[in-house]
Amino acid sequence: MDYFAPPVERLIEAFARLPGIGQKTAQRLAFYVLDLPREEAERFADAIRDAKAKTFTCKCCQNLTDSELCPICADPLRDRQTVCVVADPRDVLAFERTKEYKGLYHVLHGTLSPMNHVGPDDIRIRELVQRVADEDVQEVILATNPDTEGEATAMYLSRLLQPFGIRITRLAYGIPVGGHLEFVDEITLTRALEGRLEL
Amino acid sequence: MDYFAPPVERLIEAFARLPGIGQKTAQRLAFYVLDLPREEAERFADAIRDAKAKTFTCKCCQNLTDSELCPICADPLRDRQTVCVVADPRDVLAFERTKEYKGLYHVLHGTLSPMNHVGPDDIRIRELVQRVADEDVQEVILATNPDTEGEATAMYLSRLLQPFGIRITRLAYGIPVGGHLEFVDEITLTRALEGRLEL
Repeated sequence: MDYFAPPVERLIEAFARLPGIGQKTAQRLAFYVLDLPREEAERFADAIRDAKAKTFTCKCCQNLTDSELCPICADPLRDRQTVCVVADPRDVLAFERTKEYKGLYHVLHGTLSPMNHVGPDDIRIRELVQRVADEDVQEVILATNPDTEGEATAMYLSRLLQPFGIRITRLAYGIPVGGHLEFVDEITLTRALEGRLEL
Repeated sequence: MDYFAPPVERLIEAFARLPGIGQKTAQRLAFYVLDLPREEAERFADAIRDAKAKTFTCKCCQNLTDSELCPICADPLRDRQTVCVVADPRDVLAFERTKEYKGLYHVLHGTLSPMNHVGPDDIRIRELVQRVADEDVQEVILATNPDTEGEATAMYLSRLLQPFGIRITRLAYGIPVGGHLEFVDEITLTRALEGRLEL
């Protein structure tokens, strides 16, 4: 015998399919779950099922939500003229944590990536254009990641939205607050120089 | 809003409860599961449920199995007089990989650990004593880990089994095959010296 009982093997395989989880970690997680009380393991299985079954994308901003409209889009106090475009639902949370941004969001659920066969139709670009066309959007902040794919997506979107004559902005580049200059890479430092501000 | 939709939050929490999985990794895993096709997520949930519901401990060796008797205990070709005592089902696999051990096993499902309130009644010690008493066991190999708790458990078991007058052995200590002497710790090297063999 060089394998565990079939139900155990299937659980290990299920964990091993997750990103960043190798065979050894998958075994450790599977045995942890096997050691859980029955109800807790059930709750874990239900959490997976429920997350899949009860999560929808907000019909306005495409963020994940359990209602038709997400809490942010439904909030009457938010500035509806500003839309911050992000790649991922987690990025929305990063902005919300600043407690400074009061506009709405648009979640693309990915970035353009020809290498991975992700084209404009594979992410929520059509929905963004529709929003800009239908609603009173004054500014679109392109807040995709500052990497090659994020840049390319921002460039693509900026060209696509140009005809609407609205303000299109991109997040500022520069040195991170609390960082050490000696650890800042050359490109970031160059951008920080270019974007230097009058005191 | 500083949280995800409730079903998403519950899934993140479920992952974050796993050992060695922090909040960030839990988020990454949860979003990976959310991106899976419906059937695959269902299969994952089923794997958890099934592993819990369809896995039992072998009535003989206490290893995890999906039948009353595990494949090893049910194998008529194994040497039934030798029992290798291990702490964890994963250790059984380690021995099976050697393809050298032909005896049976006994899985304790833990080691004695007063610090963590694990006493003799919390692991499968009673079942081991019962086996030695009822069956024709000639040798018990104590193969718990070579750490404090594993040693203490081996010591405890050896005293407990002494009255049966059978052979009680412990795995040999020494330098690992393929290792470098300079990286071997003093205690291991001392043990390797003590246990040196005539060539």
